[in-house]
Parts: sequence; structure tokens; C-alpha cells
Amino acid sequence: MSLSLYQSTVPSFVRSLRAFLVILDKAELHAKARKFDPTNYLGMRLAPDMFPFVRQVQSFCDNAKNGSSRLAGIAPPVFEDKEATFAELRDRVVRTLEYLETLDPKAIDAGADREIVLPIGPDRKLNTRGGDYLAHWVLPNFYFHLTTAYDILRSAGVEIGKRDFLGAVPGVEPAA
Amino acid sequence: MSLSLYQSTVPSFVRSLRAFLVILDKAELHAKARKFDPTNYLGMRLAPDMFPFVRQVQSFCDNAKNGSSRLAGIAPPVFEDKEATFAELRDRVVRTLEYLETLDPKAIDAGADREIVLPIGPDRKLNTRGGDYLAHWVLPNFYFHLTTAYDILRSAGVEIGKRDFLGAVPGVEPAA
Repeated sequence: MSLSLYQSTVPSFVRSLRAFLVILDKAELHAKARKFDPTNYLGMRLAPDMFPFVRQVQSFCDNAKNGSSRLAGIAPPVFEDKEATFAELRDRVVRTLEYLETLDPKAIDAGADREIVLPIGPDRKLNTRGGDYLAHWVLPNFYFHLTTAYDILRSAGVEIGKRDFLGAVPGVEPAA
Repeated sequence: MSLSLYQSTVPSFVRSLRAFLVILDKAELHAKARKFDPTNYLGMRLAPDMFPFVRQVQSFCDNAKNGSSRLAGIAPPVFEDKEATFAELRDRVVRTLEYLETLDPKAIDAGADREIVLPIGPDRKLNTRGGDYLAHWVLPNFYFHLTTAYDILRSAGVEIGKRDFLGAVPGVEPAA
């Protein structure tokens, strides 16, 4: 028994991105209650030489979009990094969700042995196969940026917890 | 084509935990250079009502140990949460790595349809199958705590970057 590549990708990204839309709602309510512009979140960082919130969100959206596309053997569409308002950032998440729903599960499932070659930064490239690309690149990068975006809002006082991060996990039931 | 459950679990955990040992080395060097006791890291938090660093490390170690064990159909050993020094915390990561290497890949591979039922918190339980347990519970929880532990050290000034977080990704080559 094994997991299809589709099962290992799109449903997890969709669960996480939908959960993040709820987190953004809570962040916006927090801003409203404290009377500040939620656009202020976009430039927040955990350290002065880390990417700001806006870039963390752009990154995990692209990890989901690009990772799924490359596994499916298609060139990912480019979403320009130009979000300047909270509403535009939410829209980036929504557009990513909409795009993920257009992907053909069968094409992704065929990607385990697909050759993946892409530049990573100025001095290195990744030259691997779909299965390793998913386990060792796409998933850790996706969750890295998703968690760091969460940690930025959490450290900013937004009332969220790990249940918000995980979202609608299948099989969760009230204890008897 | 698909991914075996083993491919989706142990090698990723091992890559991440080995990378985290290097991150701990860098944190210790940072403490030495700044002349503070690295035990001070253990109580650091990103927010006063978040778990401290020590608990983040215990958590991702347990996500890896318990998730892999349950997929393999065996009861995970209990590692007591009693680390009080930096050396003991490093040892928790080392013991988790050693344990992961004892697991039978074939037993984990047989876990996709295995029934997984476990309490999650005081009021809920998870009642699912191995494949969903891995994609929607084990991996997001593991990377959540791993990234938050990283973010705590990063915000504390330790000189680490995402390459340190990812560790030895297979297929990374110098660009031509």
C-alpha cells in the first residue's frame, strides 16, 4: 500500500490554505479591535534579516502552486509578487486555492519518477525525481513558510492556536 | 506511480533531525560567543502563551517517533519530557534519530489503510486511516513544531538560514 502523489499534495495544501484564510479573518478582527490598519501585518518580521509576513505568504502559496504543477508536468503560472494590502494578500491565497482545484489528480499521480530540475538560489540547482522533490523540498518549504507566517501573527497577539493552523483535519471527532 | 509511506516519513524526519543537530551546534556557538548559558534557550517563547523552545523540540521529536510507530502498527516508546539542559535536549534529538532507524520500512509501508484512533487533547479524538493521518496530522504537526523551534532560535539571533532548516536535500547540486 502506498500514497498517491495527489493525496500527498493538493488536499493538504487546500486544507492549509483554507485554514489560513480563517487565520487572516482573525488577524483582521484583531486589527479592528485594536484600531490599527491590518496592512501593518505585511511588513512584520521575526528578525530584521528574515522575510516579512507578505513574503512568507507569497512563498507558501508558490510552494503549493509550483510544487503541484511541476509534479503534474506542467509549467506553473506566475503570480506576481505585488500584494500591498491585506485584501490583496487574502486574494493571493484565494487565487492559489482556485488554481490548485484546476490540477488533474492523474497528472500529479504520474509524477513520482518525473525528472525535476530547477534553479534554487543563485548558486545551486535541484536535480531530482518527483517523489524526493515532494518529500524533501515541496513539503518542508511549504510548511516552513506557512508556520513562520502563523508565528508572526501569533507573536503579534492574534488569538490563534494550532487548531487554526491545522484546519479541517479529516477524522477529528468529539471524544466519547 | 506513488510514494511508499516509508519514503514519506522516516527519511524526511531523519534529514530534518540531523539538520536540527547542526542548528543546535550553531545555537551553542552563538551562546558561547555572547557568553550566555545555552540552557537559556530552553525557556524562550515567541509569545507568552506559546510553548517554550524545549517543548517545541520535544513535540517534533514525538511527532516523528509516534507518527512513524503508529503507521508501522507498533506502540511508540515513551520518552519522558524532562530535559533541563541543552545537552539533554540534544540527546532527545539523537535518541529519536536512533529510534527511527530501528523501524521496519515494510511495516510502515503497510500502514496506509491502518486504522488510527488516538486522543488529541482533552475533548477530541482522531479516528482515521494511515494515509490521512500522515498527510493531515503527522507531517503538518512535525513541521509546525520544527519550524517554530527554528523561528525561536532565529529570532534570538542565532545565525541560521533555511538551508540549515532543510539540511541535506537529495539532488542539490552546484549550478553549472
